[in-house]
Amino acid sequence: MEPQKKLINSVDSCVDEALVGLVRASGGLSLLGGHRVVLRSDLEALRGKVALLSGGGSGHEPAHGGYVGAGMLSAAVAGGVFASPPPASILAAIMTLHNAGAAGVLLIVKNYTGDRLNFGLAAEQARNHGVAVDMVIVAEDCAFDRPSKAGRRGLCGTVFIHKLAGALAEEGSSLDHIVATVTEVLKGIGSLGVSLSPCSVPGSLPSFHLSPGDMELGLGIHGEPGIKRSKVTSADEVVKTMIDHMTNPDSQSCLPLKSGDNVVVCVNNLGALSCLEMAIVTRAAITCLESRGVAVARVMSGSFMTSLEMAGVSLTLMRADLETLRLFDATTSAPAWPNLSSVHVSGRSYVVAPPTMDTQPQDDTHTEGPLSPVMLKALESVCSTLLEKQEELNSLDRAAGDGDCGNTHAQAARAIQEWLRGHVVPGCPGKLLSVLAGLVQEKMGGSSGALYSLFLTAAAGHVAEGRSNAAAWASAVQAGTQAMRRYGGADPGDRTMLDALFPAVEELMKLTTAPPGGQMVILQAAVQKAASGAESTRDLTAKAGRASYIAAERVTLPDPGAVAVAAILGAVLDSLEGRK
Amino acid sequence: MEPQKKLINSVDSCVDEALVGLVRASGGLSLLGGHRVVLRSDLEALRGKVALLSGGGSGHEPAHGGYVGAGMLSAAVAGGVFASPPPASILAAIMTLHNAGAAGVLLIVKNYTGDRLNFGLAAEQARNHGVAVDMVIVAEDCAFDRPSKAGRRGLCGTVFIHKLAGALAEEGSSLDHIVATVTEVLKGIGSLGVSLSPCSVPGSLPSFHLSPGDMELGLGIHGEPGIKRSKVTSADEVVKTMIDHMTNPDSQSCLPLKSGDNVVVCVNNLGALSCLEMAIVTRAAITCLESRGVAVARVMSGSFMTSLEMAGVSLTLMRADLETLRLFDATTSAPAWPNLSSVHVSGRSYVVAPPTMDTQPQDDTHTEGPLSPVMLKALESVCSTLLEKQEELNSLDRAAGDGDCGNTHAQAARAIQEWLRGHVVPGCPGKLLSVLAGLVQEKMGGSSGALYSLFLTAAAGHVAEGRSNAAAWASAVQAGTQAMRRYGGADPGDRTMLDALFPAVEELMKLTTAPPGGQMVILQAAVQKAASGAESTRDLTAKAGRASYIAAERVTLPDPGAVAVAAILGAVLDSLEGRK
Repeated sequence: MEPQKKLINSVDSCVDEALVGLVRASGGLSLLGGHRVVLRSDLEALRGKVALLSGGGSGHEPAHGGYVGAGMLSAAVAGGVFASPPPASILAAIMTLHNAGAAGVLLIVKNYTGDRLNFGLAAEQARNHGVAVDMVIVAEDCAFDRPSKAGRRGLCGTVFIHKLAGALAEEGSSLDHIVATVTEVLKGIGSLGVSLSPCSVPGSLPSFHLSPGDMELGLGIHGEPGIKRSKVTSADEVVKTMIDHMTNPDSQSCLPLKSGDNVVVCVNNLGALSCLEMAIVTRAAITCLESRGVAVARVMSGSFMTSLEMAGVSLTLMRADLETLRLFDATTSAPAWPNLSSVHVSGRSYVVAPPTMDTQPQDDTHTEGPLSPVMLKALESVCSTLLEKQEELNSLDRAAGDGDCGNTHAQAARAIQEWLRGHVVPGCPGKLLSVLAGLVQEKMGGSSGALYSLFLTAAAGHVAEGRSNAAAWASAVQAGTQAMRRYGGADPGDRTMLDALFPAVEELMKLTTAPPGGQMVILQAAVQKAASGAESTRDLTAKAGRASYIAAERVTLPDPGAVAVAAILGAVLDSLEGRK
Repeated sequence: MEPQKKLINSVDSCVDEALVGLVRASGGLSLLGGHRVVLRSDLEALRGKVALLSGGGSGHEPAHGGYVGAGMLSAAVAGGVFASPPPASILAAIMTLHNAGAAGVLLIVKNYTGDRLNFGLAAEQARNHGVAVDMVIVAEDCAFDRPSKAGRRGLCGTVFIHKLAGALAEEGSSLDHIVATVTEVLKGIGSLGVSLSPCSVPGSLPSFHLSPGDMELGLGIHGEPGIKRSKVTSADEVVKTMIDHMTNPDSQSCLPLKSGDNVVVCVNNLGALSCLEMAIVTRAAITCLESRGVAVARVMSGSFMTSLEMAGVSLTLMRADLETLRLFDATTSAPAWPNLSSVHVSGRSYVVAPPTMDTQPQDDTHTEGPLSPVMLKALESVCSTLLEKQEELNSLDRAAGDGDCGNTHAQAARAIQEWLRGHVVPGCPGKLLSVLAGLVQEKMGGSSGALYSLFLTAAAGHVAEGRSNAAAWASAVQAGTQAMRRYGGADPGDRTMLDALFPAVEELMKLTTAPPGGQMVILQAAVQKAASGAESTRDLTAKAGRASYIAAERVTLPDPGAVAVAAILGAVLDSLEGRK
């Protein structure tokens, strides 16, 4: 078994290169030479303010470097992947912040032995250098009912502390005040994760094995064992299990939560969960909390404290009073902080009534007019022609497509016949075309339905009531053809319906200047041109539509779509000339 | 083979639930009742301004709903997973924006046949309703040298268009001006993706098969075939291949790019790439472009246009003049827009010089003082004692740990002996303790090294020059012990070094009030208490340190760490009493 392939250059360089990638992409960040330390590039802004330093093993990106910026961390120290950073780098970071004039340095440390010792050592060394330094340990994991002596693990709740402490530091709070505030807030933070897959440290095998379809509850962010394995159930059930466990009063690590409490929720992608699933879990978390009477004040959903490419999610809840929300909402320039709104989540109305519209033309009543009988006859002619040609069109389509072109057109014809039985043909041609557009869109389906619907919709506007002379009809057909070309993406010569329509339109446009007596001749010529245009597609290579996937030499019959269009135009002419 | 397990509730509900999750979490968003349409909740802000509508199949989250907000989209329509949205919903969205008083609606559509037809149809219908509507098609895929008639696909470059058009609309630009501007900008945008894994539509099998260790270049965001499969190489090489292909002038889909051009870069996670890899790819992209003389103006790196859980990345490059950058930098409330800085990426100095510090104590010169010979003798005594006890400590450790406790202490002893051969013992005890702290941190390693280093560092400040009487030494040992307890997380009784140190400190603190003549008696008593404290650990259950993983009944010997501490204190006493 080989380690999973990753997009890295080497196991040894991956952490340093990732830090360079982060810092180079973010104008507000710098690197400390010789150390894996990300710094605010505007260090001068720290003068007289408390500086905040966090960090820990890499592999949890964007933690912690992504949280460096005005209003969050002043600096972050990175260790190797899942390894605590060396005290020398932590000390170098502290001294850099101190030298910049910071009024004390607060270390925000996740509760892992290595981090406690290394940050602790650097803190003691810094004290000997005369730096006012303090440390807050984040230990908000709700996994274990009876946590070991090592205590609860520090997870994504750390990001909340970065934010709140950062806002306080930015507004000039003292070191003691910041420590006191976040120590109190920490009592109201709890986290729990669930994973559907392991992750693997670059160059290593996966950290553990999980059968497909299984999930593990309460995993650590380094793949440390959780508390329970089970089958993956629905998102709603998984979230309910998580929140039940987090708030279970029998657990020593529980987050006490009662009806009426306000919470900030962080839905954290452990790495590889799709954004679609993340949004579904987010909905589930809000719904589940609200069903317990807990008011959701804010939600952040995304990748905040990852475990490399682990497919999973963690939930962090933070009880929040108005002051906590004020600090949470404060602006920050940290690149990994999301673009959040400061609107209370629970209680907000978020559904807007849809517009009332003429979207169901079948239900409309239309008024008959002098043109109604003419148009009725033409429609009947078109429908019977399409039904007669059903097999011919299918057979043409079998040569180059899926053989259902005749069926599709027959479906449209039957839908129109059905509609004619229950409705009057409106006197306004534009209204009729809109009705037909709706019918073919709904009943014909597929690309053909959309293309005909487009044609009819674009044409409709040109033959409004009292404006339905021959010239108007010509413009309507032209507009329909153009819309088909524009949105369908085909051109004449691509072996599509356009090859019949285009020459017909060219002829029809003569109607705009022709004397009334010459109209029928033009119409006859247009139908003739459509037919020969359709016939000409025998020699064309398909460039659009499904036939474009077939080798050119295999197609020697005309395009069924073009043949259908020619037949439709012919049927209209037949009805006008009294033949059908 | 079963479809991959996902955190969803049902295949049918996943898109609607994801939309609810997005909208509920984002105070600035609303849903249009009865449709999969995300709207700005402040629709009244659209009055007199051009509204922007985009959308397409789901599965590309945060596209497009996450880009709705002031300064970006006014609304987004979602289809099913990887399926175009129905024209009726698109029309409902357009009419809602129109009814809100928008001065025209611009549709931003990715170049897929279904989207073109459905957005086109809705656009034509909206025109018939009197809405001023226009459409921009985004087709910036650089994959194919000779794209088919369907044209280049629309990929992550769409997000750039959302941003630029959004900024223009927000400042009141006309529909025509926005269309003209983004049409011009589109000529300078190109995208290309690479994937290390397929993705799977909920309820379906993976869209294609890719052998482990293989990657596919030029894939579509729905898993459509790309242009080339090959072995995954280094991140730098993959990025170079991508940029070479994107800018290859022999390709009809290339993005012309020359030395001196300014570009905005989007490094887009297709779904499941770890953030660590994303940052490495980001660095590679910046470096590769700069090596060609292209100046990188801005970089955004994250999940912007995903393909569900596909492990892969796409690069989008946009040539940018000052006006483009101004629009790119404009603020937006869209929840998926990242917290970017507006500092030019290329040319910025991003490495800060580290502080000059006393971090290499070995290299310092120290001045001898009256205490130097006493401390030298004590150190020599400690070192020889630890070396004598090496095997005893190892043997104790074998019962409950990995059997190297004696070796670790011997390593420290030899490091101190080595240092003594090349250095004078400084007269200031605080300086000596700092030197020793550095030595054990560096040479002893592991948790023991960190704990001793912590002890020595915390103690050092209490025995500064001219303040090294017996009381000061007692305070120093107390401070060291407290630091060990605080950062190590163990308490007395947990079967650690503290069980020897704590009783000794209690005794030593009597030195602060004792007359000079009684000091040696107190010291003797302290050493005795340390020894009996160490002995008492036989009966203790390990709660911290490695021994805590061993069942209590298996450990019947004293804790080696506590024994070592007692031996060290004994050795100091021996030297003071002239025995060693």
